[in-house]
Amino acid sequence: MSSSPDPKWIYHFGKNHNEGSAEMRNLLGGKGANLCEMAEIGLNVPPGFIVSTEACQEFYKTNTLPQSLVSQLAPALATLETQINKKLGDTKNPLLVSVRSGARVSMPGMMDTVLNLGLNDKTLEGLAQESNNKRFALDSYRRFIHMFGNVVLNVPHYQFESTLDDLKRQHKVDLDTDLSETHLQQLIAQYKTLVSEKAALPFPQNPLDQLQQALKAVFQSWLSPRAKTYRKLNNIPERWGTAVTIQAMAFGNMGNDCMTGVAFTRNPANGENYLYGEFLENAQGEDVVAGIRTPQPISEPSQQKNIPSRHNTVAALPSLERSHPRIFQELLQVRDILERHYRDMQDIEFTVEKGLLFLLQTRSGKRTAQAAVKIACDLLDEGHISQEEALLHIEPQSLDQLLHARLDPKAAKTLLTRGLPASPGAACGQIAFSADEAEERTRNGQEVVLVRLETSPEDIHGMHAAKGILTARGGMTSHAAVVARGMGRACVCGASDLVIDAVNKTLSVGETTLSEGDFLSIDGAKGEVYLGKVSMILPELDATFHRLMGWCDEARRMRVRANADTAEDATLARAFGAEGIGLCRTEHMFFDGERITAMRAMILALSHEEREAALARLLPMQREDFVGIFTAMDGLPVTIRLLDPPLHEFLPHNDEGLRALVESLAPTLTLSLEDARVRTARLQESNPMLGHRGARLLATYPEICVMQSRAIFEAAFLARERGVLPVCEIMLPLIATKAEFDRLCSVVRCTAEEVWREKEALSSGTEPFEPLDWRIGTMVELPRAALLADEIAKSAEFFSFGTNDLTQTVWGISRDDAGSFLQEYERLGFLSHDPFTTLDRAGVGALMSLAVERGLRSNKALKLGICGEHGGDPRSIAFCEELGLDYVSCSPYRVAIARLAAAQATIAERKKREKEKQKA
Amino acid sequence: MSSSPDPKWIYHFGKNHNEGSAEMRNLLGGKGANLCEMAEIGLNVPPGFIVSTEACQEFYKTNTLPQSLVSQLAPALATLETQINKKLGDTKNPLLVSVRSGARVSMPGMMDTVLNLGLNDKTLEGLAQESNNKRFALDSYRRFIHMFGNVVLNVPHYQFESTLDDLKRQHKVDLDTDLSETHLQQLIAQYKTLVSEKAALPFPQNPLDQLQQALKAVFQSWLSPRAKTYRKLNNIPERWGTAVTIQAMAFGNMGNDCMTGVAFTRNPANGENYLYGEFLENAQGEDVVAGIRTPQPISEPSQQKNIPSRHNTVAALPSLERSHPRIFQELLQVRDILERHYRDMQDIEFTVEKGLLFLLQTRSGKRTAQAAVKIACDLLDEGHISQEEALLHIEPQSLDQLLHARLDPKAAKTLLTRGLPASPGAACGQIAFSADEAEERTRNGQEVVLVRLETSPEDIHGMHAAKGILTARGGMTSHAAVVARGMGRACVCGASDLVIDAVNKTLSVGETTLSEGDFLSIDGAKGEVYLGKVSMILPELDATFHRLMGWCDEARRMRVRANADTAEDATLARAFGAEGIGLCRTEHMFFDGERITAMRAMILALSHEEREAALARLLPMQREDFVGIFTAMDGLPVTIRLLDPPLHEFLPHNDEGLRALVESLAPTLTLSLEDARVRTARLQESNPMLGHRGARLLATYPEICVMQSRAIFEAAFLARERGVLPVCEIMLPLIATKAEFDRLCSVVRCTAEEVWREKEALSSGTEPFEPLDWRIGTMVELPRAALLADEIAKSAEFFSFGTNDLTQTVWGISRDDAGSFLQEYERLGFLSHDPFTTLDRAGVGALMSLAVERGLRSNKALKLGICGEHGGDPRSIAFCEELGLDYVSCSPYRVAIARLAAAQATIAERKKREKEKQKA
Repeated sequence: MSSSPDPKWIYHFGKNHNEGSAEMRNLLGGKGANLCEMAEIGLNVPPGFIVSTEACQEFYKTNTLPQSLVSQLAPALATLETQINKKLGDTKNPLLVSVRSGARVSMPGMMDTVLNLGLNDKTLEGLAQESNNKRFALDSYRRFIHMFGNVVLNVPHYQFESTLDDLKRQHKVDLDTDLSETHLQQLIAQYKTLVSEKAALPFPQNPLDQLQQALKAVFQSWLSPRAKTYRKLNNIPERWGTAVTIQAMAFGNMGNDCMTGVAFTRNPANGENYLYGEFLENAQGEDVVAGIRTPQPISEPSQQKNIPSRHNTVAALPSLERSHPRIFQELLQVRDILERHYRDMQDIEFTVEKGLLFLLQTRSGKRTAQAAVKIACDLLDEGHISQEEALLHIEPQSLDQLLHARLDPKAAKTLLTRGLPASPGAACGQIAFSADEAEERTRNGQEVVLVRLETSPEDIHGMHAAKGILTARGGMTSHAAVVARGMGRACVCGASDLVIDAVNKTLSVGETTLSEGDFLSIDGAKGEVYLGKVSMILPELDATFHRLMGWCDEARRMRVRANADTAEDATLARAFGAEGIGLCRTEHMFFDGERITAMRAMILALSHEEREAALARLLPMQREDFVGIFTAMDGLPVTIRLLDPPLHEFLPHNDEGLRALVESLAPTLTLSLEDARVRTARLQESNPMLGHRGARLLATYPEICVMQSRAIFEAAFLARERGVLPVCEIMLPLIATKAEFDRLCSVVRCTAEEVWREKEALSSGTEPFEPLDWRIGTMVELPRAALLADEIAKSAEFFSFGTNDLTQTVWGISRDDAGSFLQEYERLGFLSHDPFTTLDRAGVGALMSLAVERGLRSNKALKLGICGEHGGDPRSIAFCEELGLDYVSCSPYRVAIARLAAAQATIAERKKREKEKQKA
Repeated sequence: MSSSPDPKWIYHFGKNHNEGSAEMRNLLGGKGANLCEMAEIGLNVPPGFIVSTEACQEFYKTNTLPQSLVSQLAPALATLETQINKKLGDTKNPLLVSVRSGARVSMPGMMDTVLNLGLNDKTLEGLAQESNNKRFALDSYRRFIHMFGNVVLNVPHYQFESTLDDLKRQHKVDLDTDLSETHLQQLIAQYKTLVSEKAALPFPQNPLDQLQQALKAVFQSWLSPRAKTYRKLNNIPERWGTAVTIQAMAFGNMGNDCMTGVAFTRNPANGENYLYGEFLENAQGEDVVAGIRTPQPISEPSQQKNIPSRHNTVAALPSLERSHPRIFQELLQVRDILERHYRDMQDIEFTVEKGLLFLLQTRSGKRTAQAAVKIACDLLDEGHISQEEALLHIEPQSLDQLLHARLDPKAAKTLLTRGLPASPGAACGQIAFSADEAEERTRNGQEVVLVRLETSPEDIHGMHAAKGILTARGGMTSHAAVVARGMGRACVCGASDLVIDAVNKTLSVGETTLSEGDFLSIDGAKGEVYLGKVSMILPELDATFHRLMGWCDEARRMRVRANADTAEDATLARAFGAEGIGLCRTEHMFFDGERITAMRAMILALSHEEREAALARLLPMQREDFVGIFTAMDGLPVTIRLLDPPLHEFLPHNDEGLRALVESLAPTLTLSLEDARVRTARLQESNPMLGHRGARLLATYPEICVMQSRAIFEAAFLARERGVLPVCEIMLPLIATKAEFDRLCSVVRCTAEEVWREKEALSSGTEPFEPLDWRIGTMVELPRAALLADEIAKSAEFFSFGTNDLTQTVWGISRDDAGSFLQEYERLGFLSHDPFTTLDRAGVGALMSLAVERGLRSNKALKLGICGEHGGDPRSIAFCEELGLDYVSCSPYRVAIARLAAAQATIAERKKREKEKQKA
C-alpha cells in the first residue's frame, strides 16, 4: 500500500543550508523569509529552520501538532545541530534556540516568543561550563523559565516580575545586571516553585517537550485577543496563520562585549537619513523592545534628538557610534546592504555575542507619513528606486497624518512636561488612564489622550481609540512609540517627570495634579505636553509632499473630486488638489438662520402661492451660494445634487419649537398651530431612509426643483459675468425609474430654457448670447437604479454611485441603527470589515459592476463617478479603478489620500493586465 | 421627387366590402374588428369604415387630424355612400352615421359616441321626406344636437336635459315618445340657441365638418379623466389609443316596429344559459345603456328575475320573447352563431329598424366569477371548447368574488327595501352619497356602500372604493350593474322605493331615514337591502368551482402553498387546496395575552439567566402552536420562519404601559422602571425596517434561535407520536451573508442533535429511533442575498423570495411611508402599477432571476418559492412560472386564485415555448 508523502512543513536557513527566500513570506512568514534572504545575501544570521504557515493552518484543524510535523522535527533539529555543532539537551554542549512567531505581515509584539529554549537543570551546567560564564547561564535560565512559564504555561507575567522585584529589594540590588550568581540561583528556584504552583506541574525538563509545547503556544498566540484586534485594525485575514522560526540563540547577555539592539535604517519619525535605534549591553532582545530598561542610542544624531530631563538617564549614556565604533561601522555596512537589497528602509534586530554581530531580523520599517514621503523621495534621489516604486512605498491612508492638525504656535500655552517626540502630530483631549476608559470615552464622543506608565499589546484598542498617547517610561522604539507611529497617533514617550497614580487616577508633575477627564494637549513632533486645551491649526504641506502628489497625478487614470457644500470647503478641496466637486449637497444650505425659516414656511405652506412665495425668498440665497462655489472651482466641474432629505428633517422636533415657528411665520403664512401640528405629524415617517425624499420629493413638489435649477443657472450666469468659467452638473437623487428621471429632467430643462430666454432678452445686441454648457445625471444609490442602468443611462449624462445609500439598501441595514449589531458581526467574523467604510465588493460592488456595464452599453459617453464616503477609502478606490470609473469624490481632507490611492490603483491594474497578457 | 405612400388609416366593413377581421383588434379596436368579423360570417351589420388606432396615435402627436387621414376620409365616405345608396349632406336622401370609439379592449361607457351625424336644417327635411316620418326626423335631429353639443362642443349634458324637462313640464308631457312634432321643433330651436350661446358659435351645418370634429372629439375622449381611471384600474396602456367606427345609422326610433336593445347570450350574473337583456321600442341605443328609461326584458327567464315593487314598471311590460316572437327567434339564431364562432359568451347590441334586425356590436361579455365558472363548464359540456380553453376563459382575480362573504341567513335582519340583483355578493358598510365621499371614507379605513340615484362613468373611482353599490334607478344592464359585475362589487340596482336627498345627504324609504355614515347591508345576489350591519358568513363553494380547480391542478406545474400562522389558518388554507405552508410567521404567536408578557420579560432581561427563564416559559406555548399547525398540514410541508421583527415592536409604546409592565414582571425580573426605560430607548430605531431584526436578532441573541428550533423539533416529535407526519422546513429571515446563514444553521442543527439525543434516550429499546426529516433555508429578501445567491445556496436547502421586503429594498421605498408619493407616482405615469401589488419585473424581477440562476448554479437541488404578497397576484404568478419557481405561497383566501393563475401560467409558458420552437 503506497501513501502520498507527508507535506513539507519545515524549511532551513543559514549560511550553508538555505531553503527559502524573501519571496516565500506567505509560506514562511515575513521574519522567516527575511532570515533566509539575509543568509542568502551573506549576512551573518544564526542558523535555524522555519515551521510553515501551512503547518499552522493544519494545526488549527485539530488544535494538535500534526503527526507528520512532529516526525519532521527530529531530522530538522539534527541538521541544525550539525550546522552549529551543539545538541539540544546535551549536558556538555547544549543547543539553545529561540522560538518566534512570524506572520506574512509584521504584527509587532502581537504574538509570543520564547528564548533560550533547551535549558534545564542539566544543560544549565553544560552551558555554564561551555561558555565559562556561570552567571550568563543562570541569567539565561531565569529568562527562559519566565518566558516559557508565561507564554506556554500561562503563568501571569507580573508574578515573575514581582518575584524579581522582591528579590532585588531584599538584596538591595538596583539593576538586573547587578544580580549575583547566588541571587540568580535563588530566583530560579523561586521561579520554578511559582511555575509548579500556578501551572500545577513541574517545570518541564525535556528539551524536545519544551520545543513542541512552545511551538504549540506560538501557533495559539495567533488567536489571542490582542492579535485579533490588531488583525482587525489592519485587515489581516485570520486564516493566514503564523509561521514559527526556530533559531540557534546568539547571546547578548554574555557580558559587556555583548549586546542586543534594534535599529531603523533611517529615522522612522521624520525620514532623516541616519541609523536610528537603541541597544542594551549585556541583555537579550526582549529587554529592548519591552521598554523596561532605558537603552542607549545607536548613533549620534539620534542622541541629539533625545530630550534631557531630571530623571531621564539616556543622555548620560554614550551612543554605540561613540562607544563601539567598530560594531557601529559594521552596522552601517549592513544597513547599506539591506537598503540596496530591499529597496526600502528597514527595521532590524541584532545581537552582538562577544564582539560578533548577528542579524536576527529585518523587515520594512514602519514609519510616519512624513517619514514615508521623505524616505521615498530620498531613495529615489539616491538612485535606489524608481518614481513608481517610490509612490508604491507609501500607504495612502497614512497621509491622513500629514493633514493632522498641529498646536497653534501662536496660542498661549502652559508647558506641563517634556518627553520623547515619539510620533508626530498633535492631540488635545481628556485624560484616560486605561485602554478601556479611552475606548469608552471615545464611544461617548469625547476626544481622549491615553496616559500610561508604559503601554503593552493589551492596550491596542485604547491606543486606537485615543487621539494621542503619553507614557512615562520607554524609549523611541518602545511599544507605545512603534504602535503610535503605525497608527498615526500623536505620541510623547518616556516623559519621566510624570508621576502616575493608577489607583486614584491622577497624574502629577511637581505641584500640578490632573485627574481622569481633565484636558491635556501633546505635541508628538516636539515631545511636549501642555495643560488644558490648546487650539490647533492645519498643517502646511512641504515640498516633498507636493513632489509625491505630482507623481500621483502623473500616474493615475481616475480624476479626484471632493464633496463640498460651501465655497469655503470648495476652496479647501481645491487647495488639496481636488479636480472638481463630485457632490455638493444643497440641503445643508437650508439650515442657516434665516434660511431655515423660509424653508419651513415652504414646507408648511397650505397653498401653492404661499409655497412659491417662500421658495422665492430662498432663491437668492441659494443663488449666492452657488456663485461662491462656481467661483471657487472656476473651470472645474461642480456636481450639484438637488434636495434629498425628507421635509420633516427641516421642521422643529417638539411642540414648543413648532409654536415658536408658527408665531414667527405669522406675517407670511396663514397657518394655525393646529395646521402646523397636523402637517408635521403627516410628514413623520416610520422609515425616513426609505421615505418621501430625493427624486420623490422633487417629483411631487416640482416647484422646489424649479427654484433650485433656477438658482443654479442664474448663479452660473452671474459667475460668468464675473469672469469665472462655471462647469455645471445637476444631479438627481434617489432615482428608481427612468420615468422619474425624465420627468425631473424636463423640469430642469424647461427652467434652463426659461433662464436662457430671460438672459438673452437682457443681453446687449452686440455680443451673441451664449447658453451655458451643463449636464444632468443621477446618483445611483438604489438597487433598482443599478439594475435598470441601461434604461436610465439613455437619459442620464452621468452616474455617481451613492454608495452610502446603496450599501444601506443592498444590505438592508440602516447606518443609524447598525451599531447594535455591526460590531457584533465583526466580532463573530461575519464581516471582515465595516461595509460602510470599505466597499463590499461581493454585494454592493457586484451591483455597481452590473450598473457600469449596463449603463455604458446604452450610453457610451456616460460619465461615471462615486460620491459615497467610500470615495476616500484606498481599498474602495482600487475597486473603482477596476470598475473603470472616471472619478472618485471624497471629503476635502481625503483628497490627497485619494490621489495616491488612485495612482497606486492605476499601477496595480496595469500590472495585473500585463500579468494576464503574459499568461495568455 | 417620389414620396412614400401615405399609411392606410381607414378600413371598410360590410357585406360586400370587408377589410378587417376579429384578429385585427389592435388596429381596429375591439368594436371595429368584431363588426368586420360579424359581416364576414354573414350577420346583418350596417356598413361603415374604421379609422385605426394608429391614426389615433398619429393624431396625438400634434392633436390635429393628420392631413393624410383627412384626404382618405372623402373616398371612404364615397364608398360607403355607394354601398348604402345615400349621400352625406344630401338634402333628398341623406346618409346619417354613428361615430363611435373602440379600443383594443372594451371600456364600456368610458368614451364618447355621436349618433345621427349628418343632420342639419336641410338634410332634416330630406330625412323626413325619405322616411315619410317627420317626427322621427325631428327626434333624430334633437338627439344629434344634444350628443354633438355635449361630446364635441362641451355643452354640459344637464343643460340639454333641463331644457327638455322644462319643455315637457310646459306641455305637460310625460314621456319623450309623447312629444309632438311641434314640441320637437321648439326643442331643436332651443337646443340650437343653447349651443350657440354656450359654445359661442352656431351649430355646425356642414356634415363633413361635423364628421371631422366628432372624429377629433372621440380621439380626445381617450384622454378623459374617467377613461384614464378605468385604464389604471384595468392596466390598459395609454399609448394604445382608440379606433373610431363610422357606420351607417340603423334607426330604432322610427316607430313602434323599431327598437334598440342589448343582450348577453347567457346570464352574466349566474351563467345560466338563456338570452339575457333589455330593449326599448322606438328608441336609440343610448337610451338603453344610459339607464334613463326602464327597458323591457328580452326573454321570459330574465323577466322572472326582476323583482316587482311599487314604482318598478318592468313587470308590467311584456318580454321581447312574448311581444315580438319573430325578432326573438332571429336573435336566438344570432346568439348560436356568435357563441359557436367566438367560443364564448357574447354581449351584443342590436337595432330593429322597421322589423329588420341589425347587429351593431358584439364582444366577450363581462360576467361575475360565478357566471364565468358556470359558462366555462357549460361551453365545455356543450362541446364548444376544450378543458384548457375553459380554464383560460376565467380571470383568476375574479375568483375572489366566489370567496366573498355573504349575509348570514341565520342573522336577525330588518329589510329596508328591494331592488334588482345586479351583482352578487354581499356588502355591509357606511353610506356614502358621492364617489369622492366613498373614496375618502375608504381611505380612512371605513367600509362603504355607495348610494346613488344612478351611476355614471364619473363615479368609477367611488365604485371601486366601495364594498357595495345601491342605486334607485336603472336596470340590470345599467352602468351601475355592468361596472359592479366587472369589478366584483355587490350591487343592488333600481331600488325605486329609495328617495335620495343629495343636498341633505339622506335616504328614505317610507318613514325610515338614514344619513351619510349610517350602516347598510346589501345582498347583491337577491337584490335586498337591510338596515344596519348584518353579520356575514363565508360562501360554500359549489361543484363547478371544484371542477374548475381540478382542471387547474391537472394543468399547473407550480405548487401552491399558503401563508398561515395558526392551526385555524392552516386548516382553512388546506380546505382551499393549499399544498403546504410557505410562510408561518412565528412572531404573531408572541402577541397573545400571557405570551406577550413572557416575550417582554425575555426582551428586558438584564442577565442571560433571566432571558433563558423567560424563553423557557415561551417554549411550551410555541411548541403547542407548532403541533397544531403540523397536525393541520399532516404530510404537507410547513415552512416556519424564525423571529423576524425588531424587539421594540413587542414593547409597550408609552411610559404608562412600561410602568404596568415593570410591575407585572416584578416577580420574575429584577428590573427597575429606569432600567426598562433605558432598555426601551436603546431599542428604538430610526429605520426599523433596516434595523436589528431577522437573522441579525437571531445571531446576537442565539438563545431565541435555540428556543424556537427546540419548540419546532419537539412539536414535530409530539405530532409524530400522535400519528401525524410533520414535514418541517426552517426558514432564516433577512440573511445578507453566508456567514450569518452558516452560524444560525449550526445553532439550529446543534439544537436538532440535542433534541434527537433526548428523544432517543426516552425511546423504548424495541423500536429503532428515527430522527426527523427537515430542511433549512432562507428568505431571499435583501438585494445582497440575491446577489450572493450562489454562495448562500451552498448552505441553504431552499430559497423563499420575500418580495415584500425585496421590493422595499430594491426600490428604497418603505411600504409604510409610500402612501405620500406612490399614488402620485401612478397618477404621473411613473408606475404602471403598485410594485407592492404586482411584482416589478424589470427591477425586483431581474434580481430574482439572477438569484435563481446563481442559486441553482451552486445547488441543483435548491427548492425555490415565493412568500411575499405577490404570491397571490396572477401577473406575479405568471412571472414566477417564467422563473421556474417550485411553488408560490399566498394568503389562504387567494389559494384558489393562485391555483388558476398557476395553471394559466403553465399553459402560457408551454405555448410560448412551442411558438419559439416553431420559429427556430
